[in-house]
Formats: sequence, C-alpha cells, structure tokens
Amino acid sequence: MKIHMSNVLEQAQAAKKAWRILRRVDTASKNKFLSELERLLRAHMSDVLAANTRDLTDNPALSSSMRRRLTLSEESLTAMADGVRAIAELPDPVSEVIDSRTRPDGLRIERVRLPIGVIAAIFESRPNIIIDIAALAVKSGNAAIVRGGKEAMYSNDALYALIREALEIAGLPHDVIQQLTDRRHEAVAELVKLDTYVDLAIPRGGENLVRNVIDHARMPVIHHMRGMCHLYIDAAADIEKAIAITVNAKTSNPATCNSVESILIHTAVADTLLPRLIAALRERGVEIHGCPRTCAKDTECIPATEEDWATEYLDLKVSMKVVDSFEEALAHIERYSSGLTDGIITDNANSAEAFFRAIDSACVLVNASNRLVDGAQFGLGGEIGISTSRIHMRGPMGLADLTTPAYRVYGNGHLRM
Amino acid sequence: MKIHMSNVLEQAQAAKKAWRILRRVDTASKNKFLSELERLLRAHMSDVLAANTRDLTDNPALSSSMRRRLTLSEESLTAMADGVRAIAELPDPVSEVIDSRTRPDGLRIERVRLPIGVIAAIFESRPNIIIDIAALAVKSGNAAIVRGGKEAMYSNDALYALIREALEIAGLPHDVIQQLTDRRHEAVAELVKLDTYVDLAIPRGGENLVRNVIDHARMPVIHHMRGMCHLYIDAAADIEKAIAITVNAKTSNPATCNSVESILIHTAVADTLLPRLIAALRERGVEIHGCPRTCAKDTECIPATEEDWATEYLDLKVSMKVVDSFEEALAHIERYSSGLTDGIITDNANSAEAFFRAIDSACVLVNASNRLVDGAQFGLGGEIGISTSRIHMRGPMGLADLTTPAYRVYGNGHLRM
Repeated sequence: MKIHMSNVLEQAQAAKKAWRILRRVDTASKNKFLSELERLLRAHMSDVLAANTRDLTDNPALSSSMRRRLTLSEESLTAMADGVRAIAELPDPVSEVIDSRTRPDGLRIERVRLPIGVIAAIFESRPNIIIDIAALAVKSGNAAIVRGGKEAMYSNDALYALIREALEIAGLPHDVIQQLTDRRHEAVAELVKLDTYVDLAIPRGGENLVRNVIDHARMPVIHHMRGMCHLYIDAAADIEKAIAITVNAKTSNPATCNSVESILIHTAVADTLLPRLIAALRERGVEIHGCPRTCAKDTECIPATEEDWATEYLDLKVSMKVVDSFEEALAHIERYSSGLTDGIITDNANSAEAFFRAIDSACVLVNASNRLVDGAQFGLGGEIGISTSRIHMRGPMGLADLTTPAYRVYGNGHLRM
Repeated sequence: MKIHMSNVLEQAQAAKKAWRILRRVDTASKNKFLSELERLLRAHMSDVLAANTRDLTDNPALSSSMRRRLTLSEESLTAMADGVRAIAELPDPVSEVIDSRTRPDGLRIERVRLPIGVIAAIFESRPNIIIDIAALAVKSGNAAIVRGGKEAMYSNDALYALIREALEIAGLPHDVIQQLTDRRHEAVAELVKLDTYVDLAIPRGGENLVRNVIDHARMPVIHHMRGMCHLYIDAAADIEKAIAITVNAKTSNPATCNSVESILIHTAVADTLLPRLIAALRERGVEIHGCPRTCAKDTECIPATEEDWATEYLDLKVSMKVVDSFEEALAHIERYSSGLTDGIITDNANSAEAFFRAIDSACVLVNASNRLVDGAQFGLGGEIGISTSRIHMRGPMGLADLTTPAYRVYGNGHLRM
C-alpha cells in the first residue's frame, strides 16, 4: 500500500518537474513530437492492432457497445494519425494575446494564454483517447498523467510506447506524458488529491468514474456526466431537414453522448411530420417511447413514462413528445436536459434566437445534428473531453481550451495612487 | 443541527431557482438594480457607519490590520458607490460573441459568454466585498450566496439590507443575492458540498478559510492563497523608476496581497541602487531582511534566513537579495513565488519579453508597481476575487470573468457524416 502511494506521488512530482520545462519549449519542438507520433502511428499499426486483439480476447464479457468502443482498426488508427497531424497544423496557443487594453494613464494590459500545468486524465475503453490527450497536451504546453480502463490495457500500452518514442526523438522530457503505473482502483483517488502537483482532472466515462473523481479531487474537474440531449422541431421547421437531422442525430452512433435522446414536436407540424419521422426512425430499428399523441400515430409506440423523459438510452431508442407551444418545449428541455447539447429545427430566425437565449446548454444548435458537437467537427483539432462544467469553458474542449488567460502588464514607471 | 443543514440546502435551492430567472433578465433591469444600489449607498451612509461602529466596538481584540480592513468611512462608502456605477457603465457580458468561425461545409460556430450560475462567496473582514459581489454577480447574470466574517456582521447586514431593497425596486428575485443565514462554522462546508445547486466557490481571506473551502468543495474553487510577490531590478533598470516602483509596491498598502515581499537586484546595479533604495525604504519605516551583499551596504539590515525568502510579511518588512544574473532571478522567483504577481524593472525590451515567457504568475509586470494588480485599476469594474487557480482565468476576476464561453451552432440541415 505504502509503496503504491509513493508511486502516485512520485509520478505527479515528476510530471510537474517535466512540465516546467515543457511550458517554455518552442513550437517547433512540440510539432516535431507530433509529426513523429503521426509517423509512428502509421508505421506500427500491426503492433497496436495485435495488442488490441489481446484486449478483446482477454475481455470476452464486455457489452457490445464497450466492445465497439474498444475495437481498433486500420481506419481508426489512420484517423488517429490524421488527428495528430491536424493538431500539428493548428497555431500554438501558448502566449497568444487574446485581449489588449491601454488604461487612461498609459498602462497597457494584455491577456495571454498560458498552459494549465499537469492534467490527470481518467478514461475508459476507447484507446484513441490516450493519443488525443498526448497530442493536445504537448502542443498546448501541458503535462498529463493518463489512466485508461483495464479492458484497454494492452492497446493503451502499445500506443503509449509510441508516445514515449516520439517524446524521445523530439527531445522532450519523457515524464511529460505518463501512464499511471499503479493499477489499483484507489490510485485514481490518491492522484486527484495531489493538488500541489496536479492542476486539473478530466474524467471521461460513465457516471461512476466521473463521480469518483469529483468526490476525491482537490483540483478543478472538467467533465460531463450525461448526454441527455434534445431536438425540438418547431412549428416553422422544414420537414425534410427535420427528418434528416433527427435520423442522423439519433442513429449515426447511438452509443455516443451527443446522440439525441428525446424529440419534441410542435403540435402544428405533428400531423404532417410524425408519420414520416416515425417511419424513418423505425426503418433504422429505433424503438419509440411516445406521449399519447405520438402513440396515437403508431401502433408499435411504447407509452413513455416519466422515467423515459430523463433517460439517456445510448441505444436505438428515443422518447418523443408533441408539445403545444415553443414555451412548453423550453420548459421541458430546462427540466430534463443534462446541459450538453440541445437543438431546434426552425426556419424562423426569431425562434432560433429565442431558443439560444433560453437554453443554457454547453452547445445549442439550430438546423444541425447534435452529433456535430465534437472537437474535430468544430475544427478544434480533436478534443480532450466535452465539458458541461460551469467554469473555464463548455462544450468540446480543444487545443486553446487547455490554456488559461493570464495578465501581462506594460508600464513606464506606473504606481498605485 | 438538522434544521441548520436544511437551511443551507433551502438557500442553495432558492438561489438556483432565482438564478434561472436572473440569467435571462435584460440589461436594463440589471442596471436598474445597480443604479438603485448606488443611490441607496449614498443615501444611507450614516446607517451603515453606525453598524460598522458597532462591529468595531463588539470586536476590540482585532489586530490592527484586521481593524483597518473592517473600518468603513464616508470615503470608502463613496468609493463603493462609485464602483457600483462603474459596473453599471460596463457592457453586459451575457451573450457577448467572443469567437465565430465558419466550417468548410458552411456550419457557423459561435462562442458566446453565458452566466456561470450560483456562486458561493466566503470572505472575511472587508465589508465592501459584499457590495462588489452583489454588483458583479447581478450584472453578469449570476446568483450568489455570501458569507462574511462574524466580525463584520452588522456592517454586512446593513449593506445587505440595501442590496435587498435595490433588488426589490428593480423587480429582480430577492433570492438572487442571499447571506448565508446559518452562522455555524460548519455551514460553509455544507454549502460547498451542494454541487447540484452551487456552481462555483470563491473564498477570499486567510489560508485557513481558503483551505477549508477547497477541502470540502465539490464544485470548482477560484481563489488565491498567498501573495508572495517579487520585483526583480534588472541590470538595465532605470534607477529612478526602480526606487519609485519598489517603494510604492512595498509601502502603499503593505497588508494587501499584491504588495511586494521580496526584491532581487542585479549585481550590475547593486552598488548604485542599493544605498538609495535602502534609504528610501527605511524612510518609510520598512525593515530590511537582506542577503550578505545587501547587509554589507546597511548596518541595520537583518540577515535573511531561508524562511525569509518564502515569507509573505503583509507588513512594513521586505527581503532583499543581490543576484548575479537574470537567470538566477528567474530561478529564485520560480522557486518562491506564490504565482500572484511578479515584476521586472528594465529598459531592455528583450529582457522584459524573456521575463514574461519565463514567469508563470497570474500577472507579470514590467516597469509597474505590483500594487496595480487590481480589478478596478485594470478597468474591469472591480473584482470578485484574484485568482491563482489554474483554469478559467488568472489574476483579478472582473465582470466578464463571471461568464463561461459556450457554443451556438448555426446549420442549414447539417449532418454528421
């Protein structure tokens, strides 16, 4: 027990020490790391895939959605390498001046982006996360201690070996990106108590994983807990767009947090829309849990219970409700949304603006699929997580979001009077 | 005990409910609150001063610096009213668009400022804080639950009565700004566990107060713990500016966190500068704890111990060290700074830029007094605190910093491919 605790502490101390070097490293060295990581990912696909096969073989009891998230392929590894290149091509956010003001007495005050420090990243299943974190963290001048799920152990080890090699070739301190070596469950709680060395915790995974980090962390935590996402189809919606967007938002990858779970339909378009929308969803195997007015249009509709309005299915299921007004839709979303992403389909610009003002979610969309809420889709060079936290930023957390505005003050003998 | 716990919970719930209304209130109503608060502050000075006298009488054992922070006057009340007016005159940060990008496929992605939510503000002594918090929170669309020190109870109650009256006149829900009614010490820990209702904790005060909030908080905490601030006088410093800035940074209000505590002097200017600087500081009653080379210039100099380099005196005391190089100064600051504000005096622009790149503090200054690090001095309309936290922002936390960037996405039938 004692020796484990000291490993966690030693890793955190080593990360902070390495960070003090990294935060001042020039852009060229950081991009060298990224180009090497990209090259190694493309060159060592078979090693990584062999490790991934071992994880899949060793964990036969995983659910099908866990299995899907864990499985790597040449395509997904190519996408990872492409993502690393995209991050290399983005401008270095460190020292970027985001605001400059000159006071009446001539004092010039600039706001510049500085790296956060050491990030503890705790995640499950999807092995691409370790690459996203390493690439985004290094480019933004941050160190990271990563802890993946044990079901992805061999995959993460294989990918981490490439990260270490790329760090070495680029001449960067290898402690900048570390895997937490202590595999005990308690090691996570120990790590996130070390606020002298770790500056931010980012948990990505199920509610238990996120709650465990929040309960123990002494440093800030950026996270999202659930993706209870809505689409509201307004009285002024274009019916074709509404059907295409809803089908995409529900069925393009139902296991992801940005998939829509609940659809609200204005009564004015219900008669025209509902039969076609239900048929389109049904064609893709979606199970519909509907309000009485929805079920009146569809014999296979399962009557929705109170629980359905609050359920994140993460599956080919959806809840549907006909509402009498825009205000009813807003009230429903305010009550049930998890604050990740909610959208409206409307051709009425005033309704869109009213929806934007009323809905407090991290990402609010008009006439676009909720599934577009993603760092790469937003052009942020991937994402280190999606935040529904209330400070720092909300939504997909990209490269620049791994920095914090600080002040630089230029005087000429200025005093406080 | 039970009833207290339920009070804290009820207050947090009421704050969240009131916030849901406030976050959508128009700028005019928020400014109406501010103009009424300003008017009431000017009209009720004698009531507030009587309450303040009672606090001072009831707490005869306070230290002189605590007493100074607690004492109100017509001047300080006028400054508070002026501060409220300054906040009224600033643009409303809510819904401000801070970034807009259009993706190759035409999807438009905006980043807009949204209110944080409910803020728990825990502070000591200085009764002006309750007014700063109320004014900044309401203007930025945030609710706040405030807990002042018991030594300022009557002053805070008198000021809070004005806040309540101004909320009422402006037609805003009165639960938007609440004082924590439970006066037990434990009530603070209970409040900051309620992360369902409270979104951010801002403790302002001594290390015990801040540590207590960090240890118990389930939501993010923005704070600064200490103000171990440095001034480095470079080889290329202008001697006159160096003396004026150092004297101002040390003596203009030594009890404040942005006062300088440690001065580093490049050996190249030590012979010219030290005798004059020591004389100027001595004239204002400053006790000097110096390195051997400093003490060689001054018979009254107290030899500095290792502890001195890490001590935030908050008093008319300063530590002084002659360094052989720019790099030695950087290493000293990296080792001992609390990360709040460190400055350089130099006429060499390259040295200033190198200092900016090397020093990781919330506010880094060139040729300006550390005492200028302040929300009002920076033109932010006052401050709700000063942050050395590693996310969200660093330095004086003003009006716009009480919002968080969120996404608005404008599509035209856009799908995830």
